[in-house]
Amino acid sequence: MTKFAGSVRVVGAGLLGTSIGLALTKQGIDVSLASRSSKSVELAVSYGAGRASTQADNPKLIVVCVPPDETAEIVAKELRDFPDAFVTDVASIKQSILKKLENLGAPIERYVGSHPMAGRERGGAVAGRADLFVGRPWVICAHSSSSPAALEAAQDLANSLDSAIIELSASEHDRAVALVSHVPQLVASLLAGRLAGSPKQDVSLAGQGLRDTTRIAASDPDLWMQIFSANSNEVSSILDAFAKDLNKASLALKDLSKQDNLSALREVMTLGNAGVEMIPGKHGAKHSAYAQVIVMIDDQPGQLAKLLTDVGEIGINLEELKLEHSPSAQIGLVELYIMPSAEQTLIAELRKRNWRLA
Amino acid sequence: MTKFAGSVRVVGAGLLGTSIGLALTKQGIDVSLASRSSKSVELAVSYGAGRASTQADNPKLIVVCVPPDETAEIVAKELRDFPDAFVTDVASIKQSILKKLENLGAPIERYVGSHPMAGRERGGAVAGRADLFVGRPWVICAHSSSSPAALEAAQDLANSLDSAIIELSASEHDRAVALVSHVPQLVASLLAGRLAGSPKQDVSLAGQGLRDTTRIAASDPDLWMQIFSANSNEVSSILDAFAKDLNKASLALKDLSKQDNLSALREVMTLGNAGVEMIPGKHGAKHSAYAQVIVMIDDQPGQLAKLLTDVGEIGINLEELKLEHSPSAQIGLVELYIMPSAEQTLIAELRKRNWRLA
Repeated sequence: MTKFAGSVRVVGAGLLGTSIGLALTKQGIDVSLASRSSKSVELAVSYGAGRASTQADNPKLIVVCVPPDETAEIVAKELRDFPDAFVTDVASIKQSILKKLENLGAPIERYVGSHPMAGRERGGAVAGRADLFVGRPWVICAHSSSSPAALEAAQDLANSLDSAIIELSASEHDRAVALVSHVPQLVASLLAGRLAGSPKQDVSLAGQGLRDTTRIAASDPDLWMQIFSANSNEVSSILDAFAKDLNKASLALKDLSKQDNLSALREVMTLGNAGVEMIPGKHGAKHSAYAQVIVMIDDQPGQLAKLLTDVGEIGINLEELKLEHSPSAQIGLVELYIMPSAEQTLIAELRKRNWRLA
Repeated sequence: MTKFAGSVRVVGAGLLGTSIGLALTKQGIDVSLASRSSKSVELAVSYGAGRASTQADNPKLIVVCVPPDETAEIVAKELRDFPDAFVTDVASIKQSILKKLENLGAPIERYVGSHPMAGRERGGAVAGRADLFVGRPWVICAHSSSSPAALEAAQDLANSLDSAIIELSASEHDRAVALVSHVPQLVASLLAGRLAGSPKQDVSLAGQGLRDTTRIAASDPDLWMQIFSANSNEVSSILDAFAKDLNKASLALKDLSKQDNLSALREVMTLGNAGVEMIPGKHGAKHSAYAQVIVMIDDQPGQLAKLLTDVGEIGINLEELKLEHSPSAQIGLVELYIMPSAEQTLIAELRKRNWRLA
């Protein structure tokens, strides 16, 4: 696993550009930042994401981090402006960009596309994080004209960011993201849209399920119109299959006195169970990879710190932690996530120290 | 706001029955627990949710916490067995239960239905929590035959559990939960079901959006078949409206060169934005009620405990906390959620103590 050697030029200083700059700079790699907006370069520089670009720059790799609609034009320009550099991008659709580059007659042997599967609800340089890509899938799309050296440069970049590289063709990529990202986005937006015309009182009954299923419906319409436009065929084909399933379920619902309809609806639920089981956990680990231990703590200052000090002394590494605090309750619930092999020890040791487990 | 006075009998010692018992017992209220399974009563008693029921019990209120399919029969039996008691239940559908009770000729003047909008992924007494209902909506459905005293008993129960009471008719309730719970469940199951037949490699690109939109698809098919069967009319009507929206979006997607289609798809996204905005936050507060401060900590034992000790010394109360730990990364991200009024102080004080903020 080679890491990156040479200078990197990042074009676009939003969430992704800034995060890439932060991570590479931390490793001592020279990062120059360019953007239409000098303000956002200034901000990213002050965050430690690199230095402002200059005329004298001679980057080995250029990473284009601009909105999908502008990506092909900027990649083509960078390929022209820097005839010795390799170029990659981070846009969430890949076929249409490659096609546009071909139409523009760009020297695409020096280009391979990338798509890091990482993001945050908050955009902009301010949300940038050096560890944004750690352990997350980073798709690299070589193509029939790309040089091995261009591919290698993109691989080295992803390795330097501690991402998990997945190599796909542009069409494989677009099909996969239609399934795991674009259709879920559209469905979540449609689901949340149903609330918009409904009585406020009905929506006031919302629980965590509705919040989870609709969270991404808060996403930026401009960005998503670009993505849907660029990937409409793949999205359409999966959405059609979804609509077919939905219509079957809807028909079944209309007469549940029939055994066939009951079975069809139950099939929807069990297939859903199976689908969730296929989804890898946050960092590529399986859902159930961590064991969960829930500790009830008194709602007093210092209690959580005391618990974590104890966990540290027990010598167990926390993988994740969640604290749920209920206003007006006397108690907080701390969810500790640990490797399953450590579960029994943790439970026994916490009990010994008089912690109350839920 | 009156709290409950008198003895309470809880029938069914799963998640909800145990949680109700825990909360009432904590307040010194006498709780007797009954269940077909003596094992689960034993377990709930040992958790502190009350005492086992006896022949001599004379409860003022009976709370029936059994699966939806069995609720009406058990409510009717309890009304017969305890002619001086009021009875409520916690099932997630209300019209069909009331109808069954009428058909059974039960003395329903002493019954009002309840539906606490609280739950957890994990069921069973083991998952029970005294604070499960704090700040969560608790729907109470009085009906044309119910006595004011029966309604009052249910209100006092909900008040004792620190829930937020919402009074609805059974039909209003069933329409609302179809919108905020039953249709989202079905849609999430259908969405996750699409993964089941897809290439594993495609699913491996999953990000947080897919995880959130499909989390509830892991739910128990048996329970949901009972709910769908009991509320099929309301679910069907909202699902039809959803399907109509979906088909419009699907048609638009097939030709985005047309301005009309672009506008239709953008409308889906902006309506989705508006829908999410309507959803109240976890404890009835708006989404954005807490301010978030992100701290980067070294991945070393004791670092988190040290941070929380500092937060305690600064004198700020944590509302929620999330730790995201990336394997192979040198860094962990701690998300601290606090009241917005405390944000500036916390940031300044943490900086002063040399914590790195993201």
